[in-house]
Amino acid sequence: MESEFLEWLRARLQPHPALRLGPGDDAALVRLADSGTSVVTVDLVSDGVDFDLGSTDPRRIGHKALAINLSDLAAMAARPVAAVVALALPRAGALELAQALYEGLLPLAARYQVAVAGGDTNTWDGPLVIAITALGEPTARGVLRRDGARPGDCLLVTGRLGGSRLGKHLDFEPRVQEALLLHERYDLHAGMDISDGLTLDLSRLCQASGCGAELDLAAIPLDAAADAWARQLGDGSTALEHALADGEDFELLLAADEPTAARLVTEQPLAVPLTRIGRCVAEAGLWGLAGGRREALAARGYLH
Amino acid sequence: MESEFLEWLRARLQPHPALRLGPGDDAALVRLADSGTSVVTVDLVSDGVDFDLGSTDPRRIGHKALAINLSDLAAMAARPVAAVVALALPRAGALELAQALYEGLLPLAARYQVAVAGGDTNTWDGPLVIAITALGEPTARGVLRRDGARPGDCLLVTGRLGGSRLGKHLDFEPRVQEALLLHERYDLHAGMDISDGLTLDLSRLCQASGCGAELDLAAIPLDAAADAWARQLGDGSTALEHALADGEDFELLLAADEPTAARLVTEQPLAVPLTRIGRCVAEAGLWGLAGGRREALAARGYLH
Repeated sequence: MESEFLEWLRARLQPHPALRLGPGDDAALVRLADSGTSVVTVDLVSDGVDFDLGSTDPRRIGHKALAINLSDLAAMAARPVAAVVALALPRAGALELAQALYEGLLPLAARYQVAVAGGDTNTWDGPLVIAITALGEPTARGVLRRDGARPGDCLLVTGRLGGSRLGKHLDFEPRVQEALLLHERYDLHAGMDISDGLTLDLSRLCQASGCGAELDLAAIPLDAAADAWARQLGDGSTALEHALADGEDFELLLAADEPTAARLVTEQPLAVPLTRIGRCVAEAGLWGLAGGRREALAARGYLH
Repeated sequence: MESEFLEWLRARLQPHPALRLGPGDDAALVRLADSGTSVVTVDLVSDGVDFDLGSTDPRRIGHKALAINLSDLAAMAARPVAAVVALALPRAGALELAQALYEGLLPLAARYQVAVAGGDTNTWDGPLVIAITALGEPTARGVLRRDGARPGDCLLVTGRLGGSRLGKHLDFEPRVQEALLLHERYDLHAGMDISDGLTLDLSRLCQASGCGAELDLAAIPLDAAADAWARQLGDGSTALEHALADGEDFELLLAADEPTAARLVTEQPLAVPLTRIGRCVAEAGLWGLAGGRREALAARGYLH
């Protein structure tokens, strides 16, 4: 299966200036920027956990598997360069499945000039597993880390949150261009992507930065899907709760000082909204502000 | 589980000069040599295919998962720098299993100065899957490719072949130092590691190089395990057949011109034997020479 698949794949791979030796040898050669520093991230997704193969077009799954890696590079404001793809495919229909996965991920790779540098394609008796490692390079400003937020910083998010299970978790566009633009033009203190849930990811940013945070709950930008998802569940949950904890929004969570945040919100330099949702405080912990009250907020989200 | 595991892991990771930002952010920062070229390889191993978790110490599995990646870097004569590790762990006992896997791979990483740069640790209802991506850097001589063999070149292997199922497939030492030493001191035309079987891997080297090969069957260095394995199977198979097709020897298969090969065999610069096993020919295909006869040889081994 693998040799047949590799032949199919090689016919579809575009030449890429960073790819000095592509799929076919024991390893690939990837040329990085002269800084010689590589930004490396890996994500593994599997059937039944991150997607349901039985009810989902494998192209969307392939897209997601690469997009979550590009989102991690966006979270560092790094420029994507290359990716390697490891697959464990169920034996029945393995070749067709591998092709469909790549038909989903190759257009995304092309859109962000990501060289698909090789991979490891296996069949087995278990469910589909995809592990992608993405390589990026820092821009001249260096990477955007999650540990640079300071008390008094404003917190901002791109886009709208919640209800990702209704489709966004598969079809989202990683905020690569947005992160590069913001990091180049504005002085951001910290950033990450919202993968496991706003409150859980924010608690991680706070922990790394040694601060706490207050969220202005009325300001959280709700995706229409958050409300639709709450109604579909019919369990009394609210759109806000989904925005706080669903995860897989793959939007950017950013910290910047007050003047920078004011500029960001006024200038709105992105095609998606940039919203101020709270601020960092000196005291460790999370709080929600609503109706003049300040209450402790649980860090909720998806725990691996 | 993941946060608890990361805490455990961070306490065990040594500082590494190439690791500018380690596990904990959205991605890791790895400093590569000034060439700015990265040698990238990924391998995915899974329970029931590459190991049997039920009957194997997970430390050996962790060792193998990293060692096969280092073997791919050795196959390119590249210097290992860093690795990222993606795990899909069965839920029951996931933390203990993750720890045991790392207890197996960390000593190997330390031995070859490989920075464990981060990872993705997941639990699920499926069997254990490990996908490791290793990054290396070329030496001043560039990488050793598999497509440079020429008709008339001699073929050589390190070590002894066959019977890897009796334990070598788990416990082998990747030929990293051997490859670096040989590539620095000798003019090698082509190289790869024997992962799927001598004849199958040789057929790939020949295909990439546009040539064929003759193997001197009496010269193949047989591992004692090849004979033990044949006896254990009791199916009439011979040690030689296992040496030709078992795979997972993770020895180096090399091509060099006649004078270089003669020097290699005479000087024996490694702690393991270097053996001349045949030569490249212009005509595509594989042949075995034995008892004055020349017969077509099937490219046999493990097909993924």
